[in-house]
Amino acid sequence: MTENQTLRDIPVGIDATGSRVESDSMGKIEVPANHYWGAQTQRSLVHFSIGRDVMPIELCRAYGIVKKAAALVNAADGRLPQWKADAIIRAADEVTEGRLDAEFPLFVWQTGSGTQTNMNVNEVIANRAIQLLGGKIGSKTPIHPNDDVNMGQSSNDSFPTTMHVVSLLEIENTLIPQVEALIAGIRDKAAAWKNVVKIGRTHLQDAVPLTVWQEWSGWAQQLEDALDALRSARGGLAQLAAGGTAVGTGLNAPPGFGKAIAARIAELTGKPFITAPNKFAALGGLDAMVRASAGLRGVAVALMKIANDMRWLGSGPRCGLGELHLPENEPGSSIMPGKVNPTQCEAMVMIATQVMGNDAAVAFAGAQGNFELNVMRPVIVANVLHAVRILADGCHNFRVFSVEGTTLNEERIKQYVEESVMLVTALSPAIGYDKASAIAHRAMERNETLRQAALASGVDEATFNKYVNPLEMVGHGLAGA
Amino acid sequence: MTENQTLRDIPVGIDATGSRVESDSMGKIEVPANHYWGAQTQRSLVHFSIGRDVMPIELCRAYGIVKKAAALVNAADGRLPQWKADAIIRAADEVTEGRLDAEFPLFVWQTGSGTQTNMNVNEVIANRAIQLLGGKIGSKTPIHPNDDVNMGQSSNDSFPTTMHVVSLLEIENTLIPQVEALIAGIRDKAAAWKNVVKIGRTHLQDAVPLTVWQEWSGWAQQLEDALDALRSARGGLAQLAAGGTAVGTGLNAPPGFGKAIAARIAELTGKPFITAPNKFAALGGLDAMVRASAGLRGVAVALMKIANDMRWLGSGPRCGLGELHLPENEPGSSIMPGKVNPTQCEAMVMIATQVMGNDAAVAFAGAQGNFELNVMRPVIVANVLHAVRILADGCHNFRVFSVEGTTLNEERIKQYVEESVMLVTALSPAIGYDKASAIAHRAMERNETLRQAALASGVDEATFNKYVNPLEMVGHGLAGA
Amino acid sequence: MTENQTLRDIPVGIDATGSRVESDSMGKIEVPANHYWGAQTQRSLVHFSIGRDVMPIELCRAYGIVKKAAALVNAADGRLPQWKADAIIRAADEVTEGRLDAEFPLFVWQTGSGTQTNMNVNEVIANRAIQLLGGKIGSKTPIHPNDDVNMGQSSNDSFPTTMHVVSLLEIENTLIPQVEALIAGIRDKAAAWKNVVKIGRTHLQDAVPLTVWQEWSGWAQQLEDALDALRSARGGLAQLAAGGTAVGTGLNAPPGFGKAIAARIAELTGKPFITAPNKFAALGGLDAMVRASAGLRGVAVALMKIANDMRWLGSGPRCGLGELHLPENEPGSSIMPGKVNPTQCEAMVMIATQVMGNDAAVAFAGAQGNFELNVMRPVIVANVLHAVRILADGCHNFRVFSVEGTTLNEERIKQYVEESVMLVTALSPAIGYDKASAIAHRAMERNETLRQAALASGVDEATFNKYVNPLEMVGHGLAGA
Amino acid sequence: MTENQTLRDIPVGIDATGSRVESDSMGKIEVPANHYWGAQTQRSLVHFSIGRDVMPIELCRAYGIVKKAAALVNAADGRLPQWKADAIIRAADEVTEGRLDAEFPLFVWQTGSGTQTNMNVNEVIANRAIQLLGGKIGSKTPIHPNDDVNMGQSSNDSFPTTMHVVSLLEIENTLIPQVEALIAGIRDKAAAWKNVVKIGRTHLQDAVPLTVWQEWSGWAQQLEDALDALRSARGGLAQLAAGGTAVGTGLNAPPGFGKAIAARIAELTGKPFITAPNKFAALGGLDAMVRASAGLRGVAVALMKIANDMRWLGSGPRCGLGELHLPENEPGSSIMPGKVNPTQCEAMVMIATQVMGNDAAVAFAGAQGNFELNVMRPVIVANVLHAVRILADGCHNFRVFSVEGTTLNEERIKQYVEESVMLVTALSPAIGYDKASAIAHRAMERNETLRQAALASGVDEATFNKYVNPLEMVGHGLAGA
Repeated sequence: MTENQTLRDIPVGIDATGSRVESDSMGKIEVPANHYWGAQTQRSLVHFSIGRDVMPIELCRAYGIVKKAAALVNAADGRLPQWKADAIIRAADEVTEGRLDAEFPLFVWQTGSGTQTNMNVNEVIANRAIQLLGGKIGSKTPIHPNDDVNMGQSSNDSFPTTMHVVSLLEIENTLIPQVEALIAGIRDKAAAWKNVVKIGRTHLQDAVPLTVWQEWSGWAQQLEDALDALRSARGGLAQLAAGGTAVGTGLNAPPGFGKAIAARIAELTGKPFITAPNKFAALGGLDAMVRASAGLRGVAVALMKIANDMRWLGSGPRCGLGELHLPENEPGSSIMPGKVNPTQCEAMVMIATQVMGNDAAVAFAGAQGNFELNVMRPVIVANVLHAVRILADGCHNFRVFSVEGTTLNEERIKQYVEESVMLVTALSPAIGYDKASAIAHRAMERNETLRQAALASGVDEATFNKYVNPLEMVGHGLAGA
Repeated sequence: MTENQTLRDIPVGIDATGSRVESDSMGKIEVPANHYWGAQTQRSLVHFSIGRDVMPIELCRAYGIVKKAAALVNAADGRLPQWKADAIIRAADEVTEGRLDAEFPLFVWQTGSGTQTNMNVNEVIANRAIQLLGGKIGSKTPIHPNDDVNMGQSSNDSFPTTMHVVSLLEIENTLIPQVEALIAGIRDKAAAWKNVVKIGRTHLQDAVPLTVWQEWSGWAQQLEDALDALRSARGGLAQLAAGGTAVGTGLNAPPGFGKAIAARIAELTGKPFITAPNKFAALGGLDAMVRASAGLRGVAVALMKIANDMRWLGSGPRCGLGELHLPENEPGSSIMPGKVNPTQCEAMVMIATQVMGNDAAVAFAGAQGNFELNVMRPVIVANVLHAVRILADGCHNFRVFSVEGTTLNEERIKQYVEESVMLVTALSPAIGYDKASAIAHRAMERNETLRQAALASGVDEATFNKYVNPLEMVGHGLAGA
Repeated sequence: MTENQTLRDIPVGIDATGSRVESDSMGKIEVPANHYWGAQTQRSLVHFSIGRDVMPIELCRAYGIVKKAAALVNAADGRLPQWKADAIIRAADEVTEGRLDAEFPLFVWQTGSGTQTNMNVNEVIANRAIQLLGGKIGSKTPIHPNDDVNMGQSSNDSFPTTMHVVSLLEIENTLIPQVEALIAGIRDKAAAWKNVVKIGRTHLQDAVPLTVWQEWSGWAQQLEDALDALRSARGGLAQLAAGGTAVGTGLNAPPGFGKAIAARIAELTGKPFITAPNKFAALGGLDAMVRASAGLRGVAVALMKIANDMRWLGSGPRCGLGELHLPENEPGSSIMPGKVNPTQCEAMVMIATQVMGNDAAVAFAGAQGNFELNVMRPVIVANVLHAVRILADGCHNFRVFSVEGTTLNEERIKQYVEESVMLVTALSPAIGYDKASAIAHRAMERNETLRQAALASGVDEATFNKYVNPLEMVGHGLAGA
Repeated sequence: MTENQTLRDIPVGIDATGSRVESDSMGKIEVPANHYWGAQTQRSLVHFSIGRDVMPIELCRAYGIVKKAAALVNAADGRLPQWKADAIIRAADEVTEGRLDAEFPLFVWQTGSGTQTNMNVNEVIANRAIQLLGGKIGSKTPIHPNDDVNMGQSSNDSFPTTMHVVSLLEIENTLIPQVEALIAGIRDKAAAWKNVVKIGRTHLQDAVPLTVWQEWSGWAQQLEDALDALRSARGGLAQLAAGGTAVGTGLNAPPGFGKAIAARIAELTGKPFITAPNKFAALGGLDAMVRASAGLRGVAVALMKIANDMRWLGSGPRCGLGELHLPENEPGSSIMPGKVNPTQCEAMVMIATQVMGNDAAVAFAGAQGNFELNVMRPVIVANVLHAVRILADGCHNFRVFSVEGTTLNEERIKQYVEESVMLVTALSPAIGYDKASAIAHRAMERNETLRQAALASGVDEATFNKYVNPLEMVGHGLAGA
């Protein structure tokens, strides 16, 4: 069955029960007859049934892109008959579309090179392609998982290739739009409160005033900056290991394979993937992933600041700061009736904390390469994709269920500005730091207003009025003086 | 419907389709008619659909124990009619037995107090109890989720109570037995190789000899010590927050409730749970969880050392150290035929790395309490239980698929001992450090054996033979000199 | 010069300028003539001039104890002439007393076994002992740094021995007393405010009341629990590696050496040091140090909570929570006159953060042992001792300059209790959760007091007065209900 | 004394003993008469004597640049008389040149805004300027530390400005040149070994061959990539907070001050500093520092891989891999004569570990901002500058004392290639994966060479010779196929 074959229109699914026998270089093994995976997947299920962490499905789907690109290159070069390529491509597309999700049962805690997941993909695509070609599932003919689907590749280069592909896609397509939407949401609220003057707080203590617009603009800016940093990780992720094969030399891959497959992947994804200039670094290290993780951590660091600020400003209602009303989404307490809590903010700080923990694992793992391979790949990609997912969803919910519905307690905000003695700072250039300081202390000690204390200390009313004007003290923009 | 009611024998499950209306203090909301959960669970599903991390099912099951214990105490004290208690207890038992697992869909990323999961449990138990009593699901009569199931409790005390209960149970029942089995597995192998002398390595460099037994005994000891440390976390986990209710004062719980419920939980689990002596610490901090996490990290640190040693000693087969043959469980490479890799060791070092990342998140979260509550509970318990699970499963598989099948390459081991020049150390007390050092350098420079170099340097043969005897150099036990 | 020698009374110090020649197995090298160190120390200074982190002086001093103990054991066993031992002991005592501090210039970033510091100590003690015996410094006679001072030891066992000795001493003698004093300081303040009722806060939101005494008692309890955990690390630190020599077998140390030297160290320090039961674990791992570091982290986690609570409760003075007045120790701002900031709290949260970073390094390093040695010792001991030092000093200053001088703003505290609507919780058992919830919402929406809202909702005044009584709501102790 | 004054040529130093009285808004305090610092520095010494960590001197020196730039701007705008500016500038230059290093005794563990160090700088510059102008030290005339030296600034903006300035300068001037030199050192060695074929190792197991050049090129590439990432942090560090003053609004600073001072700092340093576009983000967050720290971590991750590879490849000499001879810089063991250890590699892995710990502290601290200020600045800048310093020095020593002197054991390298069975991979495209796999297994089981096993399995000699040619298997470059 090696001549030209026609693809048949067979829906996804194997109509069989019980088990069939598959084999690999270790021998024969029974696999569930209604699944496409083969011997090596089955062995992995036996040996690596650890916890509940399965390889992120996004990674398996992205593997479909890589396998399709390889088939395209191999067919174009004449190494792989077109009809074989067509079958592989059809099956690979189904993988990418999520139609074969149930065929990727392997755990994160497996071989550190990701070989078992690469073989899982090879086996599923091979068997599905065999099915599409009317062959016998498990026969490895006419499509062989290693010789055909894995042609020109090794797990050692195809797995990190897929790690980069899926990470870049998930960051750019899933996470960044949600962060951008959150930034827009924050900016919208800020714009609505452009002229609301509020008290500033430094060291948690009363300070000089600013506007709500200014305060919220800082949050948006932090997220913008975090996105910049995250985007700067793109360059590293765009470099693909494919073409390095087993140790980086490209053995068994034809000349030009790395460049060609990167070009195909770029074409298929619309992202600027290129072949990595040095395959020994690409296999021995996973530094671009560590850098991407740091980028995710940067987003988490900014989100933690923002979520904390929001919940503190919303604290109360009567015994806290009480400047913000956060939306009431659910009853807050099983025992205290009527309690409303800043739960979206809490979810967000927990997410940020988790991302920092994930990042610690990624960095540690990234430092553990040896010689021609870093065998901490599954733990790295699982943590990175997990962080992407919870950050993206978290930003969405935080925006929709917290930011967008937040309102101001303008009365309280105004009262704080009026009561604060830190507006004395504006007098400092006129009367000197030391005298201003004495006035502030007097006001606190005698429970006076700042005006009372200033006038009693010899400041004339005209001077006081000229300098101590909150509306003037907030300046005119976001860039300070 | 408030008089005595009889429990009916109704199997788990609601024979309904579509939705029904449930309500809470926020108002009405539709929930799926075939589920037991109520309004607050449903609201949480709407607002906290973040990622794929659901609250660990072990925690939900353990919550059944806590709710049962509360019902027992409340009934015994006459606050809760016995027939109500009986219904709650039956439903709670079903929760604990895992028969209602499908009713706990909530995500980790929710309110930081765990209130939504507490209410999820309250709602499921209430509706199931209502069903068992022939009432109308969703009616809150005759069993009210707050007034009856949550009686004497707040999420603020019942959630950390459950965190402690489930963590202690999982550590003691799931993890420790697997670590102990691994220790036994290592000791068994060690015992079989009691007299095999091998070269020691320090700084990765050749050192003086020891036996394989001694080397492996060190691994077992590291794990023993790690278990000791882990067990020392028990004292903290055994202290329960229940009885503190909303802020630690015990408001709305009857006097003695904390002590009584802890005693019931101890009885139900067979573990020495007691009421925490200070409820403000028990609610405001989660320090016992941080400590337990450090204990888990200690196990990971030891496992990383062991797994690394095993894979390095098994490196080769021809260009590595090659002292061990690790079992061949699967083909090692998709491109290099016949390659066998230390995949169980790799899974283990990844697990250890993950546990260290989890622990970083836990410690960070543990430091973030404010006033009467630490609202980082879900992220903490999720990371701790995740670590327990992967460590336990990892130890099992590492033992069965790696340790137990490992064999020695005795020929290689012997050869190393014979070739090493570091046995010169034994001559040092006889001829002094400086002279011994010169002999070692000579041997390396001239490519001589140690014997050749020593004799050529003026050591007489009798002295050489007396001191340089590997069998003598390994001492007689595990405690050194 | 090998017969019995008499110790002379020569003060510490070498009256020489320029350099002298010292030698080791690598050859000759010039060292500064006015220093006691020898060739290996000098080589290390050449090769490891990295940063400004010198080996903690406490470790070098503690090494004096270990060297003295070794000399005592070796002399008692007759291996070392008593007059040699006497000279070594005198010099070792001077090391321990800090009189030779200037002789330990080596950096943390050196060989991972700590060999260079062990040799630094050996060289200094040898040369000082030679001086005391009237010999020629640098001559290695009559006291040889390796053959005499290092007798029965290897860096591989003596360095971790010293790590354990110094860590246990510093934790118990330096840190724990300061934490205990802080606990006492907190308890003293708490006792003074036993009956001051204040509003509780959960999720940062108003909750039911408690007393200031109860709140502060929780902080003290967290620290007590952290100390318990820290003390539980003692068992591991008390086990000493000495007797293991190069790889754990005890080669070149006489039988019983490990037990004897541990006993001597116990005697000299008054701490329960014993010989480690398994020397392969003691050399190959540093798990007891990782565990001690986790104990330190536990203290940091509790301190972070406490310092954060204090600064938030002290926030204001007019636009924050304002329940506490923290002492004013210094001007708070270079631009805002009269500003007072919670600087001791800030120092403490930074210290806590640093300790968590140190601990991350320690755990990572602890997992990196290979075969018979973990060569991450200097980084581990440096981070642990650094954490001990800043925690101890931090606790001292935090107590003296923040806790002890803190006073209450009782007026504000009272006002919060009166204004809060969360006291409705006390009505819940009487009128049900749902009705109580409606009252709370009404009070907030209409800006009513709780009493107004309750009466308007149909609660009669007697019922209200009976249940809503803050003094009753705080319960009677620390253990809740 | 407010008219024009002439600068006198007075050398650095105060010829006085005992103490003098200085004052601030808290009152009077005695300071050592021979020091320039004033009241606020002295108060800080009293209250923050914590540990031994003093503020990095590089930061204090860089503060001189910021103060000079401020004086230039203030004088140019006519706010500060030129003669005052001249005195301040002279004193600031002395700070930057390190001539006043002894005047900056403050600890890292101080106020979280860095106010005390800002005031330390203000006081030292003011008193030195007063001295240069012939005034009375401590009199605050004619130069006032707040009104003149701090003109237009707040600690809140000047401290993060200085953090950015010093971090960018240290990274670019101190660290990057050392990493570049190390890269060059690695490339030099690699070039010399361009054609030396060696065995590859993946999963620590024998794999297909590559050249020493290729392997080392991967290390160099990893460092290049790490530098790229580090350089991408420049954009954030280049943005300065100055002009934001107390809360970001720029209160008390004249319009345009931020832009002007950034331009001056750029001019003085030759680096592209600009004013931050949003001062609320610049004060409330320290995200650019967190990002820089991640960049440093990236360098550490790559260095850890490289140092580990080197020490493993140099392991032996007879019982390890033994491919490399690392330079022998010092005796390796106090007990094992003639032992030589990879100590530079060990120092480097410890440095890398420390940098990862520092980074964990930085990220945690970076997430802890509140409202208008992040008060974790000292801990952040101390950890970043510490990491820069030890990485820079570590790279220098690692290059000079390890990389440059490393030589190959070509005999051993050749032997490995000859013995490995993994060269069977080259046969795979010719005979198929499964058959090749069987040959490899046969060779191992029967202890045959690959050739023997292949021929015995039916591969003809011509085919074998054609495919199994190590020189061909390594490809032709660094980019793989």
